[in-house]
Amino acid sequence: MENSKVKEETVLGLTYKKDESFWKWYSEVVTKGEVIEHYEISGLFTLLPWAISIWEIIKSFFDAEIKKMKIKNCYFPLFVSPVNLQKQKDYMEQFESVLAWVTKTGESEVEIPFTIRPSSETVMYPYFSKWIRGHRDLPLRLNQWCNVVRWQSSHPTPLIRSHEYLWQEGHTAFATKEEAEAEVLDISELYRSIYEEYLAVPVTKGRKSEIEKFAGALYTTTIEAFIPNTGNGIQGAAVHCLGNNYAEAFEIYFENTKGKTDKVWQNSWAFSTRAIGVMIMVHGDDKGLVFPPKVAPIQVVVIPVSYKEDADTKLIFEASAATFKNLVEAGIRVEADIREHYSSDWKCSNWELKGVPLRIEIHPEDLSNDQVRVVRRDNGAQTDIPLANMVDHVKDVLADIQKNLFDVAKQKRDDCIEIVDTWDEFVNALNRKKVVLAPWCDEEAVEKDVKARTVENMSSIKSICSPLEQPELTKGVMCFASGKPAKKWTYWGRSL
Amino acid sequence: MENSKVKEETVLGLTYKKDESFWKWYSEVVTKGEVIEHYEISGLFTLLPWAISIWEIIKSFFDAEIKKMKIKNCYFPLFVSPVNLQKQKDYMEQFESVLAWVTKTGESEVEIPFTIRPSSETVMYPYFSKWIRGHRDLPLRLNQWCNVVRWQSSHPTPLIRSHEYLWQEGHTAFATKEEAEAEVLDISELYRSIYEEYLAVPVTKGRKSEIEKFAGALYTTTIEAFIPNTGNGIQGAAVHCLGNNYAEAFEIYFENTKGKTDKVWQNSWAFSTRAIGVMIMVHGDDKGLVFPPKVAPIQVVVIPVSYKEDADTKLIFEASAATFKNLVEAGIRVEADIREHYSSDWKCSNWELKGVPLRIEIHPEDLSNDQVRVVRRDNGAQTDIPLANMVDHVKDVLADIQKNLFDVAKQKRDDCIEIVDTWDEFVNALNRKKVVLAPWCDEEAVEKDVKARTVENMSSIKSICSPLEQPELTKGVMCFASGKPAKKWTYWGRSL
Repeated sequence: MENSKVKEETVLGLTYKKDESFWKWYSEVVTKGEVIEHYEISGLFTLLPWAISIWEIIKSFFDAEIKKMKIKNCYFPLFVSPVNLQKQKDYMEQFESVLAWVTKTGESEVEIPFTIRPSSETVMYPYFSKWIRGHRDLPLRLNQWCNVVRWQSSHPTPLIRSHEYLWQEGHTAFATKEEAEAEVLDISELYRSIYEEYLAVPVTKGRKSEIEKFAGALYTTTIEAFIPNTGNGIQGAAVHCLGNNYAEAFEIYFENTKGKTDKVWQNSWAFSTRAIGVMIMVHGDDKGLVFPPKVAPIQVVVIPVSYKEDADTKLIFEASAATFKNLVEAGIRVEADIREHYSSDWKCSNWELKGVPLRIEIHPEDLSNDQVRVVRRDNGAQTDIPLANMVDHVKDVLADIQKNLFDVAKQKRDDCIEIVDTWDEFVNALNRKKVVLAPWCDEEAVEKDVKARTVENMSSIKSICSPLEQPELTKGVMCFASGKPAKKWTYWGRSL
Repeated sequence: MENSKVKEETVLGLTYKKDESFWKWYSEVVTKGEVIEHYEISGLFTLLPWAISIWEIIKSFFDAEIKKMKIKNCYFPLFVSPVNLQKQKDYMEQFESVLAWVTKTGESEVEIPFTIRPSSETVMYPYFSKWIRGHRDLPLRLNQWCNVVRWQSSHPTPLIRSHEYLWQEGHTAFATKEEAEAEVLDISELYRSIYEEYLAVPVTKGRKSEIEKFAGALYTTTIEAFIPNTGNGIQGAAVHCLGNNYAEAFEIYFENTKGKTDKVWQNSWAFSTRAIGVMIMVHGDDKGLVFPPKVAPIQVVVIPVSYKEDADTKLIFEASAATFKNLVEAGIRVEADIREHYSSDWKCSNWELKGVPLRIEIHPEDLSNDQVRVVRRDNGAQTDIPLANMVDHVKDVLADIQKNLFDVAKQKRDDCIEIVDTWDEFVNALNRKKVVLAPWCDEEAVEKDVKARTVENMSSIKSICSPLEQPELTKGVMCFASGKPAKKWTYWGRSL
């Protein structure tokens, strides 16, 4: 195995630098960091244990929260019949080009080909129509954890845009608009928590423009993250208030408390494994992945630092085992890397590549000093800490790493936001990869005009969202693009 | 809503009796009990929250256990390319007739059509081949929770046989046969726990015959349940020791500790949402579903029994709320049914239909007596118990229901097993819906002969399994079918 050891020693580390070749860096870090594996059918990726562990942690938080809200999990079939797909015209229009069709089962052609769900509105709502009869059947609040398939022609990117991905999709129906809108805010807040409190990624809650909203929705509330390296906004999750539009298409009527027939108010909302990709883009560095402690599959790795000839080796390995045991008992996700055929230098680099937030090294000199050396992944800071209060210290440092990752990311994100008033400022800021916050008249024609005027020099400039928390809009302020009176502040920029 | 109330009152209860028309009873109980909903594409079923809750409980047990064994979760793509499907001939032969083919994405025909996974051996093993190089890469132990699609032409049955279902599939590779075989036993034992300790369904661990084993496996270890009403065995889960057969097909070689090239030893193992169907078939009765407490989504329902005119109504509802609160705090999954527009009789029948293991009724007379009435779903027994030790009592009763359901099911199952020595006894027992335990010569030709000789009168008689715990086989005992010396005891019968 000597050959393969040499190979392993040499392939460590990344070829590309995040600030110099961002996309190559991303592609390299998700494969070398063992987050994903490419698949032989292009546009599909395998999620390796490192990705699934993170997904399970996020899922477990979100699932418990929606259960508290009395939302129930279910599982609808993978397939949609075309007759239902077509019931809501906007939906069909949006998804038609990305549908995967099953036309043959076994040796037989399928009589009426069906598609794989790109999302489940058209799978579920015929049954909402069947189940909901009176106001006592409301609210109906369902969620499912599943895979969806969208065969998009645009360039596939691991975790961010792939033909199949994992997500949750919530689908709910209420008797009143007020209840539906209250849920929109509740779920948006949960999505914010996932990003900011778990993934340490700062996000903006906002509303999509008429052009950018979900097909057939009354409006879309979005959770927007930002990738400073590329100057791209990226949608992190979305809550669609569908109003009565799908209720009309699928005839989801109910008898209200006054005995009259009424349409239900619906929401649908989803977030996906894309969140993991966003987190990697935001926190990763030239050494590899950087995981926030709250979602890190392994929060602490213990590495004995010794040499074969060293008389202390046995004691060092014993101290490592004891440290490991103390941390496990304190509920910390920890691993001790006691593999003997790798050097401790190699191990340190490897766990840095893999994004583990904290490394504990145990050196020969630590034994007599009753201490261990603690090295942070986020900023590289090293501290010798006494064994006596090791566990408390580790907990404190992990909390501090979580906070620091968020603070640093927020600072970087905020530095990329530029407030503009005029078209010239707008173009100038976007040319410097900024995201722009501008007063806007909120007219569809103006957004189309902005797209048209920027398409040559800057691909895909669009409105990102109008933040739910609006800065004050001084009376008389004009739209940056149309010169008409502005109605709201809106973010504009590139979007992934 | 008066009309719909009347409707609800009248549709309660089941039309069919389990002992008289089993299949109609089953079909009715899974729909009226709100476990599944039929789907417009035939052979597909929606799993309602009642089913998914049970699935989540089983999943959470099993997932934690395999994580202790250092098995890691991952997620491979939904699609298989035909070139890999064909690499293992037995596999392709077994699944060819049930594959769902994607031939079109968006508006375009797919260049090389691909299929949806019927299971993931052929999805994963090309990557096992890529990842495994040396003995230090072993063992590789992966699992995924996902959906699979098998478009079987046989009659679809909710949960038991549907075109799509949810399962877990474990795929592992080891350096030695011993390690692989040790895992076979460990996983089989976990599957037994799910059935016997969670679902309260007695099962037999056994080995499949050469004819019945999984395509390309060295051997298949099976977990077999039994449905007394139909006299059918049913496979509850399976662990396939693949030997080196897939390693050869997919070239999964490694350099062993002696520097020589070796083939890995592999297992694959799975259990699915079918388990929920088996449990319903075993425990359900003419009143509806009967759920064992350990998997019941709701373990206890509290029902205030009062009348509109009754002065005690308010006090009864308060007592119900207090009882609910005490049980929640004790960690019991409890619901208080305080809906005012349903009669308490209707509620009692409804929760019996839904299978909730224990009902607590609070009557006017219970208030002054500081007691509640406890009614068991499994045997209908009613007891008045003092409020003072209500929680402890409820816990004891739930534990007793769990045990009783298993004991009763085991007795019924055992009553259906008949030990036979001769062909005449064999035919006679099978005609009485028994499952037969018979001494067998273990020859493939003899099993084929048994099938041929029984096919006219008794459809699908086959070997079910040879139990891992073999009764003593007296020397000189002959095979019931061939008259040759018997090699093992084997179960034979009908199988779902």
